[in-house]
Amino acid sequence: MFFQLLNKDPDTDARRGTITTPHGTVPSPFFMPVATTATVKTMSSVDLQDMDSQVVLSNTYHLYLRPGLDIMAAAGGLHKFMNWTRPVLTDSSGYQAFSLTKFRKITDEGVKFRSHIDGSMHFFTPEKVMDIQRALGSDMVMPLDECSPYPCERKKALRGLQRTTAWARRCKEHFHKTGMHAAGQRLFAIVQGSTYEDLRRQSALELVDIGFDAYAIGGVSVGETITEMFGALNWVIGHLPADKPRYFMGIGLPDQIVKAVGMGIDMFDTCVPTRYGRHGSAFTSKGKLTIRNSEYTKDFRPLDGQCGCHVCANYTRAYVRHLLNLNEITGVRLMSYHNVYFYIKLMERIRAAIEQCRYAQFQKEFLSSYNSSL
Amino acid sequence: MFFQLLNKDPDTDARRGTITTPHGTVPSPFFMPVATTATVKTMSSVDLQDMDSQVVLSNTYHLYLRPGLDIMAAAGGLHKFMNWTRPVLTDSSGYQAFSLTKFRKITDEGVKFRSHIDGSMHFFTPEKVMDIQRALGSDMVMPLDECSPYPCERKKALRGLQRTTAWARRCKEHFHKTGMHAAGQRLFAIVQGSTYEDLRRQSALELVDIGFDAYAIGGVSVGETITEMFGALNWVIGHLPADKPRYFMGIGLPDQIVKAVGMGIDMFDTCVPTRYGRHGSAFTSKGKLTIRNSEYTKDFRPLDGQCGCHVCANYTRAYVRHLLNLNEITGVRLMSYHNVYFYIKLMERIRAAIEQCRYAQFQKEFLSSYNSSL
Repeated sequence: MFFQLLNKDPDTDARRGTITTPHGTVPSPFFMPVATTATVKTMSSVDLQDMDSQVVLSNTYHLYLRPGLDIMAAAGGLHKFMNWTRPVLTDSSGYQAFSLTKFRKITDEGVKFRSHIDGSMHFFTPEKVMDIQRALGSDMVMPLDECSPYPCERKKALRGLQRTTAWARRCKEHFHKTGMHAAGQRLFAIVQGSTYEDLRRQSALELVDIGFDAYAIGGVSVGETITEMFGALNWVIGHLPADKPRYFMGIGLPDQIVKAVGMGIDMFDTCVPTRYGRHGSAFTSKGKLTIRNSEYTKDFRPLDGQCGCHVCANYTRAYVRHLLNLNEITGVRLMSYHNVYFYIKLMERIRAAIEQCRYAQFQKEFLSSYNSSL
Repeated sequence: MFFQLLNKDPDTDARRGTITTPHGTVPSPFFMPVATTATVKTMSSVDLQDMDSQVVLSNTYHLYLRPGLDIMAAAGGLHKFMNWTRPVLTDSSGYQAFSLTKFRKITDEGVKFRSHIDGSMHFFTPEKVMDIQRALGSDMVMPLDECSPYPCERKKALRGLQRTTAWARRCKEHFHKTGMHAAGQRLFAIVQGSTYEDLRRQSALELVDIGFDAYAIGGVSVGETITEMFGALNWVIGHLPADKPRYFMGIGLPDQIVKAVGMGIDMFDTCVPTRYGRHGSAFTSKGKLTIRNSEYTKDFRPLDGQCGCHVCANYTRAYVRHLLNLNEITGVRLMSYHNVYFYIKLMERIRAAIEQCRYAQFQKEFLSSYNSSL
């Protein structure tokens, strides 16, 4: 069984489960560090395994362009290429075609786009995106979708969700026909519908009607307000089957993850820990610290006094700040390592709280200590 | 005792010894990774300890400018600032004033220079350079010297070595007067004299006459030919006392180190492993590989089949090449880690060969396997 529900928190919608893939069973809820180009920025797969990261997310769009599928195939797939033995989820390219390319043309047939790297033209169909993810050997496969921009006219949002449904159907057909399901790969559907409650609901119902291994809420974290973001979640979560994993795509900040788990989400991804790390922000149990600030010049405490990572065990805010100010790679790496570790350990604390049926209390305490406005 | 000679190779001038500092005893010959700004590029002190690196080199010039001495003092010195418990050698700034600054004026009193960072004016005297290294808490202290450029007129080289001798005398006086020797710090002298045999010899004899804890051959690796570089070593090594460590500054490539050990050198530093790593060259037992080259696109072997580092245990040439091509920090880090590891383990092999009185054979085999022209 792909998803097994172990227990539900009595006072919230938080749930503890497991996801079983050809690359092992992992506990949920979990966070996936983003390895866009087969590496989580500044980190190796050994680093991720050392901190007990469970799953990584990688991008079909990027890997297809570089290194290219012939090299991925010669390597024996993405896991072997990057030496990662645990599960991998690959994004479908819908979001990248939306956010990265200078030119794209979306028709009912698929997405034509110009590479952001060398300007070459490519055409992704739902079927092609399945073929790529079969070659990559992803454990969790995303269908091609049309990600609505923000803001988005109702008419355009409607057309986007209809196309997303039609493409999801074609993905599912191709996925089964080409033996991906039989090989243990699992296919997600992506709920679209922009900021329109009825469209979000329509998208969810259409996709559930077709039936997928798991459901993602997409088209979020694209510039909308926090209220709209949680609205998109709130409107559909009741319509997603309880026996399937639920994935809130591209979310989010630590307090947003804590809140979304309480609303019934099982899976998260975001490049926030590495991106914020590169730009000098450290996540801590007491909120975000801007380590570049001059107040940390002579602060010889660890980034987070409550953190058990090797960065906090060995280095001070003053030292990391010094390295960041000099644009030293070591500074970027120490910050990124700490931040990803913070996310991984946050998920461990979240899972423990659900197991112990005290998620409401955990959520309240976390949001308070973190000085969250959620 | 600062330096203890354990054994000499019977057929070469290679020597095994130890150097004892307030931060422990380390075996010689050894290589010092370059931590210019209190970090070896892409690496942490934990990484260096993991690979059993013995000593790191840092730069007075850089640390004085950033983070500045008040922060270094508040941290409790360089060791605590970068969390490095083993010995540190700090360069004096003579070379940096020579190579980095846009404006410098050298008088008998000292070096006036404009910071390469913000254009601010600074004045380093021999005494000031001692004071800085006292504040840093360096185990091995370099005196202010005048590093001759290449090529260099004889008249200028003579004046440079005379000034270097005069400054070394002032450094020694200040070093003792301010309690640095009593605190366990040890002072080197730097032989100058450019490419002139008699000037090199004059410099060595003048410095040995004053008497220092150790001797460095400076003004090398500044653009001269390999023949001239080893000439500078050959002309003076016989005049340096056998009971003091000998340091060949800024050298070099792996085969150059192997050759210089055979001529009686105990200490090395160079940023070659990290710099070459950043630019895509991996050091291996069979020579240098340019991993960026297209021949490694589908090469799923480790960087060096004979290497025991975690990069070679986990990643392929094809994967590292992919990361380098995308300018991913992970690629730069994996290359740098492997290269520094290669240097550290090369020194272990060198020491074992001297202990076993088979250095001549080791040198011959290494240079042959490495395809060296030396």
